[in-house]
Amino acid sequence: MATKRKSGVSDRRNRDSELIAAAITVFYEKGYAAASLQDVAEIVGVLKGSLYHYISSKEDLLARICVESHAQASVIMAESLESADDPLDQLRVYLHRIALWYVNNIERVSIYFNEGKWLTGERLSEVRTQGREFHSFVRTLVDKARSSDRVRDDIDPRVAAQLILGSLNSVSTWYRPDGLYSPEEIASAFTDMSLASISGEVPPVLSRVTAPDGDD
Amino acid sequence: MATKRKSGVSDRRNRDSELIAAAITVFYEKGYAAASLQDVAEIVGVLKGSLYHYISSKEDLLARICVESHAQASVIMAESLESADDPLDQLRVYLHRIALWYVNNIERVSIYFNEGKWLTGERLSEVRTQGREFHSFVRTLVDKARSSDRVRDDIDPRVAAQLILGSLNSVSTWYRPDGLYSPEEIASAFTDMSLASISGEVPPVLSRVTAPDGDD
Repeated sequence: MATKRKSGVSDRRNRDSELIAAAITVFYEKGYAAASLQDVAEIVGVLKGSLYHYISSKEDLLARICVESHAQASVIMAESLESADDPLDQLRVYLHRIALWYVNNIERVSIYFNEGKWLTGERLSEVRTQGREFHSFVRTLVDKARSSDRVRDDIDPRVAAQLILGSLNSVSTWYRPDGLYSPEEIASAFTDMSLASISGEVPPVLSRVTAPDGDD
Repeated sequence: MATKRKSGVSDRRNRDSELIAAAITVFYEKGYAAASLQDVAEIVGVLKGSLYHYISSKEDLLARICVESHAQASVIMAESLESADDPLDQLRVYLHRIALWYVNNIERVSIYFNEGKWLTGERLSEVRTQGREFHSFVRTLVDKARSSDRVRDDIDPRVAAQLILGSLNSVSTWYRPDGLYSPEEIASAFTDMSLASISGEVPPVLSRVTAPDGDD
């Protein structure tokens, strides 16, 4: 067996990671609002009191999950812009990468997207600003692609960005790691459908079908 | 002023509606898990204890919201099937109607779709069966449309149904009644984009863009 000589710093780092991993499991299963530090302590196998050596509140754990997730998401945005010159090509790379990242980190990323709203004060402002960043990133690319005639004129970039990101975020409600589809299959289907949704032509025969009276 | 002579039955019905309306407000704002009967009582303006004349638990309120929502959603499914013969036309009518219904009843429907998971026992089984019904309805129409060559061959009806319904469900996170778009605008954008996502052709120039190495 290897000699076990960890420094205090690395011990602390390991315990931090262990705590974050436990918090991700608990927040994902119960939802942040209903989860407790007691639940986290039970997974780690320590008394609740000893968690306070590492964090001061349940919100601390949520904040760390969000900070780390945002750092990863920011890298994906930056790399997507560098990957191509055309906005629709950049969007394609972005959607594929962000979807793979989401599916491969489904618990963590789903918490970041859906539970960040429970942060308070300065942290809440930050996570809201970040939410607008994602939206703005997609909206801007759709808008630029529309100017260059690669997206249908009648697409509203703001609504399109919401529907596309909403569709992505839905994977946390139905994707199962042991299910029928691989992360790559989900990411590709999502990317293809999203691009087709803004750039595709609806077959002519469809346009003659209008909603029946009384629909609105 | 009109003479006020209500029967006991109608009094009870009014109080029931008032309770459901209050529960919808509270569950939507706080989330079901974090909401309490005390919150509901405060909105109605009664003591918590008097709620027990009408319901026996917080779950009762959630169950009623879900039962009523499901009845409405079932009507929309049935009417959409009757509205046309072609599966893609039926899907178009369905998506438009269900989106209008969702946006016009954003609080109630969002609770039905997102908080039904907190029900227990038989009620939980029912709401899960209903969730599968929605999914199966869309999947079946996509599948039929694919057989009739009106949907791209490479579309997986199961994944398509999840992404389309996920995109619809996202409206509860971003739609604001006092916002930029009317329910009709949202419903139309959602319907057009969803149909284009399964039936549209991705412009050829896009197909040459492949994700960079290291993406999966």
